[in-house]
Amino acid sequence: MADPISDTDDLTRIDGSRIVVSVDAMGGDRGPEVVVAGLALAARGNPELHFILHGPEATLSPMVGRHGIADRCTLRDAPGVVSMDEKPSHVMRKGKDTSMWSTIESVRAHEADVAVSCGNTGALMAVSMVRLRKLPGVNRPAIACLWPSRNPGGFNVMLDVGADIRADADDLLQYALMGASYARNGLDLACPRIGLLNVGTEEHKGRAELKAAHELLQSAAAAGNFDYVGFVEGGDIPSARVDVIVTDGFTGNVALKTGEGTAMLIRDFLKESLTSTIVSKLAALLAMKSLKRLSQRIDPRQVNGGVFLGLNGTVVKSHGSADATGVEAAIKLAAALSKSGFSERVAARVASFNAAREGATADDADNKPGTLHD
Amino acid sequence: MADPISDTDDLTRIDGSRIVVSVDAMGGDRGPEVVVAGLALAARGNPELHFILHGPEATLSPMVGRHGIADRCTLRDAPGVVSMDEKPSHVMRKGKDTSMWSTIESVRAHEADVAVSCGNTGALMAVSMVRLRKLPGVNRPAIACLWPSRNPGGFNVMLDVGADIRADADDLLQYALMGASYARNGLDLACPRIGLLNVGTEEHKGRAELKAAHELLQSAAAAGNFDYVGFVEGGDIPSARVDVIVTDGFTGNVALKTGEGTAMLIRDFLKESLTSTIVSKLAALLAMKSLKRLSQRIDPRQVNGGVFLGLNGTVVKSHGSADATGVEAAIKLAAALSKSGFSERVAARVASFNAAREGATADDADNKPGTLHD
Repeated sequence: MADPISDTDDLTRIDGSRIVVSVDAMGGDRGPEVVVAGLALAARGNPELHFILHGPEATLSPMVGRHGIADRCTLRDAPGVVSMDEKPSHVMRKGKDTSMWSTIESVRAHEADVAVSCGNTGALMAVSMVRLRKLPGVNRPAIACLWPSRNPGGFNVMLDVGADIRADADDLLQYALMGASYARNGLDLACPRIGLLNVGTEEHKGRAELKAAHELLQSAAAAGNFDYVGFVEGGDIPSARVDVIVTDGFTGNVALKTGEGTAMLIRDFLKESLTSTIVSKLAALLAMKSLKRLSQRIDPRQVNGGVFLGLNGTVVKSHGSADATGVEAAIKLAAALSKSGFSERVAARVASFNAAREGATADDADNKPGTLHD
Repeated sequence: MADPISDTDDLTRIDGSRIVVSVDAMGGDRGPEVVVAGLALAARGNPELHFILHGPEATLSPMVGRHGIADRCTLRDAPGVVSMDEKPSHVMRKGKDTSMWSTIESVRAHEADVAVSCGNTGALMAVSMVRLRKLPGVNRPAIACLWPSRNPGGFNVMLDVGADIRADADDLLQYALMGASYARNGLDLACPRIGLLNVGTEEHKGRAELKAAHELLQSAAAAGNFDYVGFVEGGDIPSARVDVIVTDGFTGNVALKTGEGTAMLIRDFLKESLTSTIVSKLAALLAMKSLKRLSQRIDPRQVNGGVFLGLNGTVVKSHGSADATGVEAAIKLAAALSKSGFSERVAARVASFNAAREGATADDADNKPGTLHD
C-alpha cells in the first residue's frame, strides 16, 4: 500500500528551493515537546525542509537544541496559547499574541508555504479564515482527511470532517471540486470518483439539500474533471467504489471519529485475544511483523493531518493528541502539498469552474434559469 | 463478554406460555431460504418459540419441511414482495398483499408478540407506523441498535439509526427515554448513562437542536430514571463512558454503517496480514481460537437486529444481507424482548414521563413557560 506522504522521499521543490513550514508548537494535548520531536523526525532525510516555530521562545529554544534542529528552525516568540476548549470568537478578539495566530501570519506574509497546528480546530479555522481569507467563489472552507481504504493507493479522501456543521447543496458542490483537486494532487488520480454520503443509495432518499447536491454534482462532473458515482453510504467510505466522499462537517466529523473509535476498539480486542493464552501469545510473537504492518495500516497517526481547503494558503490541522509520529506525518503531508503547488491548483480549479458556470448560466438563462446557481 | 441475546437460553415467558414471532420470509437480499434456516437455528433449544411465517406458501412450505420446523410454523400466504428499492409510499398504497404487511398485521391482531423482517427499512417503518400506530406522546419512532463496546455487558445502545432523517430536541428527548428503557430491559442496567452525539463535548458546540436537547435531557434525567453524561463524540460510541447514545436517524445511520465498514475493512486487512507469509500462516493457525472469538466479537451478524421503538408493538428489523446466523440473532432478540414485556414497559415509561411533564409544565407555567414543552 503506497502511503501518499511517506512515499515523498525528497521534499524539495522542483526548482530546488527550500520548503518552509510554519509550525504552531503549542495547543496540542501533549505540549511542545512532541511537536519538536516530530519536527526532528520529519527533518531527518529531508534537508530542504525548514521550520518557523511559534511559541514561547524561552521554552522552545532548549528543546530545539536538544533535538539537534536549531539550524533548521527559526523561532518566533508568541507567549499566548489557545486552549482546547476556548471559543473561536474569543480567540478572534483576544488571540493576537498566540502561537496559533502567529503561525497563520507567517503564511499570510508569504514567509512560509504552509502551516501546521495541533491546536483547537474551531479556533484554527476561524483565524485561518480571517487572516488568509476564503478563495473567491468558496462560501464555506472544508477540512479534508485521508481514510484507509481498499483502493490501490490505500487511501480515500473525505470532506468536510469538521470545518462547519452546515453545508447546503452549493457548498457540497464546492467540496466536490476541492476534494477532487486534493485527490488529483495528493493521491495522483487523474479523474477521481466522487460519492455523496447519504443514508441510502436510492435517488429519493435523504435530506433536501442532498437531493439538490445530487443534481448539481451530476451536472458539474465533466467541467470539474471528476466522475460522480452518486450516493454512497457509511460502509462505502473505505471502499474501492469511490475516491472522494463528500458530506457536511457534522456528519463527516461523527463518521471520522466513529471510524477511529472502531479501529481502536478492534485493536484492543485483538491485543486481548492474542495475550489470553500461552499458545496465542506464541502465535502473536510469530506474527509480530504482520501484526505491526496491520497496526500501521489502521493507525490514525499514520494518516494524521486534516487539510483546510478553500483558503488562500494551505493549513494542516494535526490531531490534538498527536505524538511525535503523528506530528511527523502532518509535517510531511504539509510539505508534500506545498511541493505540488497544491494551494494554487485548488484556487485555479475553483476559479475556472466558476467562470465556466457563470458562462453556462448566462448562456442558458432562458432555458433553465438558476439551475446551477442555486 | 455477555451477549444479551445468546445468554437467553430459555425463551419461555415467566408464565410458561409460548412466544409467537411473526416473521417476514421475503424481502431480504438472500431470499427466504436463509430466513427459514435462521428460524430452524433459533427454534433449536427453545421449544416455546413458535413462528407465523409470511410469504408465498408454495415456496415456503417445502423449505419449512426440509428444515424440520413444520410443526413450529404457521404459514400465512402472501404473494407480494416489497423490494429493497421500493418507495415506502408505494408500499402504503399497493402493498396490502405483501409478506411485510401481513407480518405486521399479525402483531396488530395480537396473534404474535413481535415481528421480524429483513426487508426494506423505510417501507417496514411506514407499514409499522400506520398499522401499529405510534405510542401516545411519541412524535417520531426510532430504530435502536446494539453496538459492541468496552462496557462490562459488551454492548451499548444507539438510536435513532435510521427511522427518520430528522429529529428535533423533543424527539431526541423521547429517544433518550425509549433508549433508557431498552437498556434497562435489554442490557439489565438499572440507571443507564445517556450521551447526546455531537461534534465536540463542549457545551457551545453543535447544531441548535442539540443545544436545546442538551438542556431538555439535563432536566429530564431524574424523572426519566437515567444519568445524562452530556455530549459525546463518535469515538465514544463504543466506550465505557456511556450506555446509550442518542442522535438523529441520519447521523446514526451513517455512524452505524461507518463502524460496520471499518470493522469489515480491518477484518480483511487482518486476514491478509496473517496469510502473507508461511510464518504468519502458522501463527494464525495457532491463534485460531482467539481470532475466531475476536471475529465473533466484532461480527455485525452477532448483534443483528434494529428494534423499532415508539410503536404499539415491537418490530425487529434484521439486516437486509443477514445470513442464517444473522436471522437467528434477530429472532432471539425479538423473543427476548417479547419475554420481558418490553413493549408494554416502554409505553408505561413514556406515558408516566409525559404525565409528570404535563404536571410540571402546568405548575411552572408562570416561571418558565414552555421550557419542557417545546
